Amino acid sequence: MNNFEFKNPTKIIFGEGQIAKIATEIPKDAKILLLYGGGSIKKNGIYEQVKTALKEFNIEEFGGIPANPEYAVLQKALDVIKEKQITFLLAVGGGSVIDGTKFLSSAAEYKGDNPWDILDKKIPTLKGMPFGTVLTLPATGSEMNSGAVITRSETKQKLTMGGPGLFPVFSVLDPTVVKSVPQRQISNGLADAFTHVLEQYMTYPVGALLQDRIAESILQTLVEVAPTILKDPTDYKAASNFMWSCTMALNGLIQKGVPSDWAIHIMGHELTALFGIDHARTLAILTGSHYSYNFETKKEKLAQYAERVWGVDQGSIDEKARKGIEKTVAFFHSIGIETKLSDYTKDYGGTGSEIARRLKERGMIALGEHGKLTPEDAEKIVELSY
Amino acid sequence: MNNFEFKNPTKIIFGEGQIAKIATEIPKDAKILLLYGGGSIKKNGIYEQVKTALKEFNIEEFGGIPANPEYAVLQKALDVIKEKQITFLLAVGGGSVIDGTKFLSSAAEYKGDNPWDILDKKIPTLKGMPFGTVLTLPATGSEMNSGAVITRSETKQKLTMGGPGLFPVFSVLDPTVVKSVPQRQISNGLADAFTHVLEQYMTYPVGALLQDRIAESILQTLVEVAPTILKDPTDYKAASNFMWSCTMALNGLIQKGVPSDWAIHIMGHELTALFGIDHARTLAILTGSHYSYNFETKKEKLAQYAERVWGVDQGSIDEKARKGIEKTVAFFHSIGIETKLSDYTKDYGGTGSEIARRLKERGMIALGEHGKLTPEDAEKIVELSY
Repeated sequence: MNNFEFKNPTKIIFGEGQIAKIATEIPKDAKILLLYGGGSIKKNGIYEQVKTALKEFNIEEFGGIPANPEYAVLQKALDVIKEKQITFLLAVGGGSVIDGTKFLSSAAEYKGDNPWDILDKKIPTLKGMPFGTVLTLPATGSEMNSGAVITRSETKQKLTMGGPGLFPVFSVLDPTVVKSVPQRQISNGLADAFTHVLEQYMTYPVGALLQDRIAESILQTLVEVAPTILKDPTDYKAASNFMWSCTMALNGLIQKGVPSDWAIHIMGHELTALFGIDHARTLAILTGSHYSYNFETKKEKLAQYAERVWGVDQGSIDEKARKGIEKTVAFFHSIGIETKLSDYTKDYGGTGSEIARRLKERGMIALGEHGKLTPEDAEKIVELSY
Repeated sequence: MNNFEFKNPTKIIFGEGQIAKIATEIPKDAKILLLYGGGSIKKNGIYEQVKTALKEFNIEEFGGIPANPEYAVLQKALDVIKEKQITFLLAVGGGSVIDGTKFLSSAAEYKGDNPWDILDKKIPTLKGMPFGTVLTLPATGSEMNSGAVITRSETKQKLTMGGPGLFPVFSVLDPTVVKSVPQRQISNGLADAFTHVLEQYMTYPVGALLQDRIAESILQTLVEVAPTILKDPTDYKAASNFMWSCTMALNGLIQKGVPSDWAIHIMGHELTALFGIDHARTLAILTGSHYSYNFETKKEKLAQYAERVWGVDQGSIDEKARKGIEKTVAFFHSIGIETKLSDYTKDYGGTGSEIARRLKERGMIALGEHGKLTPEDAEKIVELSY
C-alpha cells in the first residue's frame, strides 16, 4: 500500500425527503445564490422543494449553467455574487452545476485580478465561499469531492481545478430524483461511475487489499443495480445504491494508497471536444482498447477483476484478464452504450493522430499509472477504438 | 437503504515514516499536551519520533492513561490542561489513550461544574479542544470516529460519550508500529475490528447493497491478513491492510443506511466487568451464541456472509447460515482466541442471570437491531457461551 493522506469533510444527507433539511445546514443570516442548469428542476419538483425549505432565507437565483460549465456564463454569475453580496452558494443540479459552483466558490474569494488564473495557473483553492449541493443526477461524484472541470469555449480550453477549500459543506442525495433523469443520462451515470472506479483500480497490485475490495464492491453494486434502474428508475433500492455508488466512486476513498490511471479520461475529453460525444460514452469507447493495448501491465488486476466482479473462475491469468475486458465491453452494451467510435461518427478517420497532436500540443506526453504512455500510444489506442 | 447523515472530517495521514508530519498539522503557537499510556512508546521508538517532530513546539506530557481510561486519572490530566493553559492535545497510543483524550477534549471546553455530567447526563460534545492522534495499536477505530468509552472504577461505571466536536483533527497511521504490538494485542485487534463490522452488518437486509459489500470487504481483508500479521508483524502489506481495516471498521461509513446490533458489545462489557476478560475476547465468546440464539432474525445475512466472506456455495439458507457461524468461531480460534466463557474462568456458573440482573438494573431491556432482546434473552445467550 502506498502512503496517503485522506480528508473529506463534506456532510452527506442521504434519503427520500431530505431536501427539507438544507434549512438547518445554512447560516440563518446567509445571502444565498441558488444555482441551477437548464431548468429541469422546475419541472420535476426539486426547485419547489428547495424554495420551500429556504422560505425564511434571503435568496437570489442564477439558472442556465450549461452541461460543460462555461466560463463566460460563470462570469455572469460571479457578477451577481458581487453585486448582491452573496455569502453562500447552493448548487441544485448534476456535476456541471456543482463544478460551476465550485469555480464560483473559488473565484468569489480569489484576491487576484483575473479568476481565469485559478484554472490556467492551477492555483489550488485553500478557502472558497461556502457552498452546498442538492444532487439531481448521480454520475460525477462532484457532490463529495473538491475537484471541478471548467470549459472556456472562446479559447477551446477545458481545465481542471481543485483544492482542500472546495469540498461542499453539505450535499443532499435524495434517490427519488433519479425517476426524473432521462434514460440516456442514467446510462451515462452508470458508465461514468463505473469508469471512475476502473481508473483508480485497473493499474497494478500494490498490496492495497482493502482498497481493491472496496473498489470491486462499487463495481459489483453498479453491475447489480444497472438493469433495474434502467427498467424502473422509481425502484428505491436500485436508485439509492446507484446514487451512493456514484458518490463513493469519486470521493477520494478508493484512490488512497493506490496508483491511478486516468488516461481514459484524458483521451476521452478529446473525443468530446472533437465530436461532442457525451463524456461517459467517450470513456466506454476507449476502455476496452486501452486495456487491450496495455494488457501486459494491467493483466494481473484485470484477472482479479474478472474473478471477483464477473465470477470468471476458469483459465490462466491471461485468459481471465481477456475475459475481464470482454465483460466490461458487454456491460456497456447492456446499459445501451455503444463502444466503437464508428458507432458515433462517420468521420473517425485520422482521429488517433489528431488526438496525439492535441495531447502533444498541451505537453501531455506521459499518461497512465506508469507515466509511460506517449501521444503515439494514445494514437494507437484511439485507432483500436474505431 | 435507510436514510442517513454522514460526516467525518478527520484527516488520515497513512504510511511508514509519516509521524514526522504532525509538525505541519498543529498550529505553531499551540501549547501541546502529549498523552500516552503505560510507557511502551518510550521503548518502541514512537515517543522519540513524536518528540523529534515537535522539537520546535511547546509541549507538556501526561503518561499513565490505563487500558480502560479511568476518570480519576483523567481528572489529573485535566488539572494539567488548566494549569499549563494547554491548547492542543496529542494522543499517542491505542484506543484507550485516544478515548481518554476525547474526554479531555470535551472536558477542557465544558462550561458546567462537573465534567462527569458529560458522561452521566449524556451531553453531546459540539466543540472540544482540538486534538490529534498517533495510533500505536490498530483495533478500536477511535482514531477516526467521535466516540469514547470512559471508566469510573469508584462507581463501577463504564459510560460512552461522543458528539460532532470529538473527531480527531488528524490521525497518523504508521503500519510499522504493529511490529512492536504484543501478539495477544494483535489477536485482540483482529477480533475487535472483525466484531465491529459484524455488529453493523449481521442484522437483516435493508437493500443497502453497497454498504453490505464494503462491510464484507473489511471482513475478507481481515481474514486474508490475519495469519500473516500474527506470524510476521513486520510484513508491511499485512500490517497496512490490518491497520486500515481496523479504522474503516468503525469510522461510521459502513453503519450508514443500515440497522446496527451492538448487543454483543453490551453483553461483552459485562463479562469484562465481572471477570476482567479482554474486551475483544468477550466479543469472541458471545458472537457464536448470539447468532445461534437469534438465528431466525439473522439467517439471511448470515447466509450472505457465509457465501461472500467464506465462499460457502452449497446448501439452503439455513445450512449456509449455520456454516457462517461455524466459520466465525473457527476464525477466532485460528487467531488464538478461545470462544467459551469456561476457557477463561471456572466461576462461570450463574453469569447469565448476573448479566441479566445488571442489564435490568441499568434499564438496558431492549437490545439488538430490533430492540427486542430482553435481559432474559441475554441470560440465555450468555449461558450458551459457557
